[in-house]
Amino acid sequence: MQFESLPGFREFYPEACRLRNYIFSHWRKVARCYCFSEYDAPVLEPLELYIEKSGEEIVGQLFNFEDRGGRAVALRPEMTPSLARLVGAKANSLKRPVKWFNIGEHYRYERPQKGRLRAFYQFNVDIFGEAGPAADAELICLLIQSLQSFGLGEADFKLRLSDRDLWLLMLASEGLDEAASAKVLGIVDKLERMERAKALESLSAILGEQAESFLGQVERLTTIRDFAGLRAFVEALPLEGARQEAARQRLAEWTALMEHVEAAGLMAFLQIDLGIVRGLAYYTGFVFEAFEASGEGRALAGGGRYDALVKKLGGPEMPAVGFAMGDVTLIDLLESKALLPKFVDAPDIVIVMVGADERKLALLDAASLRAVGYQVNYPLKEQGFGKQFKAANQSGARFALIYGTDELARGAVKVKDLTSGGECEIRRSDLLQTLPELIEHGLMADDGAR
Amino acid sequence: MQFESLPGFREFYPEACRLRNYIFSHWRKVARCYCFSEYDAPVLEPLELYIEKSGEEIVGQLFNFEDRGGRAVALRPEMTPSLARLVGAKANSLKRPVKWFNIGEHYRYERPQKGRLRAFYQFNVDIFGEAGPAADAELICLLIQSLQSFGLGEADFKLRLSDRDLWLLMLASEGLDEAASAKVLGIVDKLERMERAKALESLSAILGEQAESFLGQVERLTTIRDFAGLRAFVEALPLEGARQEAARQRLAEWTALMEHVEAAGLMAFLQIDLGIVRGLAYYTGFVFEAFEASGEGRALAGGGRYDALVKKLGGPEMPAVGFAMGDVTLIDLLESKALLPKFVDAPDIVIVMVGADERKLALLDAASLRAVGYQVNYPLKEQGFGKQFKAANQSGARFALIYGTDELARGAVKVKDLTSGGECEIRRSDLLQTLPELIEHGLMADDGAR
Repeated sequence: MQFESLPGFREFYPEACRLRNYIFSHWRKVARCYCFSEYDAPVLEPLELYIEKSGEEIVGQLFNFEDRGGRAVALRPEMTPSLARLVGAKANSLKRPVKWFNIGEHYRYERPQKGRLRAFYQFNVDIFGEAGPAADAELICLLIQSLQSFGLGEADFKLRLSDRDLWLLMLASEGLDEAASAKVLGIVDKLERMERAKALESLSAILGEQAESFLGQVERLTTIRDFAGLRAFVEALPLEGARQEAARQRLAEWTALMEHVEAAGLMAFLQIDLGIVRGLAYYTGFVFEAFEASGEGRALAGGGRYDALVKKLGGPEMPAVGFAMGDVTLIDLLESKALLPKFVDAPDIVIVMVGADERKLALLDAASLRAVGYQVNYPLKEQGFGKQFKAANQSGARFALIYGTDELARGAVKVKDLTSGGECEIRRSDLLQTLPELIEHGLMADDGAR
Repeated sequence: MQFESLPGFREFYPEACRLRNYIFSHWRKVARCYCFSEYDAPVLEPLELYIEKSGEEIVGQLFNFEDRGGRAVALRPEMTPSLARLVGAKANSLKRPVKWFNIGEHYRYERPQKGRLRAFYQFNVDIFGEAGPAADAELICLLIQSLQSFGLGEADFKLRLSDRDLWLLMLASEGLDEAASAKVLGIVDKLERMERAKALESLSAILGEQAESFLGQVERLTTIRDFAGLRAFVEALPLEGARQEAARQRLAEWTALMEHVEAAGLMAFLQIDLGIVRGLAYYTGFVFEAFEASGEGRALAGGGRYDALVKKLGGPEMPAVGFAMGDVTLIDLLESKALLPKFVDAPDIVIVMVGADERKLALLDAASLRAVGYQVNYPLKEQGFGKQFKAANQSGARFALIYGTDELARGAVKVKDLTSGGECEIRRSDLLQTLPELIEHGLMADDGAR
């Protein structure tokens, strides 16, 4: 019987697994440099958790089912609901700001295509308990530096920054209520991929005759690329009283956020782009997405502020901001830029042995060397000397340890530097003391016995 | 609305996640020291893959469902079927012996209890393409050394070694056919937890009047603890011709396996115990389980040879041996032996700053330090000097970098060693050059400005 894996799910043969682990280790390292703590949550969760966060529509994209205990459950399509539950449940005992990250797999039943699979990894990074824009800025810097850590520069990617609050103020100034605003933002979210006539038609259904002038206003806002332009646009909005004050406040937060990113030396990556609104209704302030600099391809990462979600999922009031970066588009980009390193899985030491008698001493030394952390290989079967040497050279190992009859009779083994060809003899009893030095300095081709 | 995670699934708050990662990093390190390559396979697989391997009975323990495309799928309850598929599919291009490991989560719908959850991690380690006992021995050594790496010694755990082939030969000598043998082994597997009278009754249903004498024979075999005893038992079996030769061959493989483990210096961990038969029908030679030395509690790990599985799942003939170690019983054991370290998640450096002007330079330096791998923290909000210092001390950080007005005017910052209390001033432009030395040597309490 022949089996295949399910569509949209990946098999990780060692080469692919090394690449995956390379991505993970960079994500993890940058998160730790920013002093975020790793957490995780179940891969399978109550279906209701996702419906509560995203509405019934989400169900059509899920791997959901009824378990043997009659519970409606789903494979996690994203991390945020589980995270918000974890933080909410211990909100009072967690030291703030809560700075957490996760690297985990997520599952969505979508049509597999370029950059989109049914099972994919995400790097989720979030800050809870800090309402000010320094938290948004810190995450934006972390996002940028994590992409930089793979060798990507400002010619390769940009982070587009937008603001749901400014959008809502702008929509309120047009007289739209909350429900209409949500619908309009849904259209704005798709504007880049939509014909103008189609967009106008959709807007007309909500705004009637205002649609044409409103679309013009939208086009002005979404083409702004500098802060002076954004400030002028916002100040020209017909806002009064509390709304005017709110707009002033938002501009001050924009200034603070940008000063932070500027101070960190990362401003070249930031692009003002109010065309980003993020489809999900739960964002409440700054929203951002990272894209390949060309603007083509799917987003590399996306996130924003979601101050209302923890409470919605049963916790207390808790400001929150976070982003998620996926592995699929990232690997595509790194591949296209030739930024994926060659992965070498070479042992430190290969043991070559003459015969069965030498094998016993070799096995003892292999166990000792492995116990202190050396990567040691040797043939499981008895093999000829020449074959063993060929395999040792092909393995990419740094050293061969040669267990020969004469040397062992002297209590010694021969060490061969497989790069330089240099060799020397060392006492078996000194192996653990001598190897670190050999590995640091190598052996010259003309080194003799020590 | 209040949410909880599903029964038998774990949430990993940072402390639990550090513990999990600690276990993973030891597993990964030991596997690499043995020159095994990491792989992974999908978490969701066709249900048929598990039925083909384990029979229909397995389904009752699975999280299985029909996906939106009408496919019968299941969350993986174990790694081996996916692994056998991967290896089988590339059997001809993989360099042998294939030495692979995985660390991954698995899912079984069982009653959650001590040592058993519905979602758990396993360390799976396998060798393909090597039929001789050196492969079994290598895995046994790896299993032992991986438990040793957590600080467990021979007083803490034992590896019990048994042999399905010897069992089948013994059963054949009693005149049992394959089907009857499988049933009898199913009873032997439960013997330790079964009353004698009950066992006798079950055996009588298969063996009739022979049951009593057979049970005596079983009890003799399962209480053998030394190889001389095992050899005598096997040589006394009424076997002839090919079966006698097979028994002789098995004893030779036992000798080879034990010589290997002895040579590696790990014999103190090995215990002959033919009471281990492993319920699963697909094992074909040596089988083994690691247990707490007291013999109580669930197995820490289990495995054995399964030479027929790759072919059964659609691949070519391919000898195979492997084991799996779970995280749940391991963590319980390490906890009971007080072998879990205290995990510290302290930053390298905490930045303390006087005010908003100093903040800008601090942010720039933080980004630079993080870019080269330092773990750097600073308050997201403006805070008083005293409060910042208190937080820096509580963080467990090694150093505080103090951004004060006067020092910055001189192009310098103050460094304080939070362990010794020593401090000095260093030029901001020299920060990246100076810090490695400071971190290596620390600062004395009486160090002055440099």
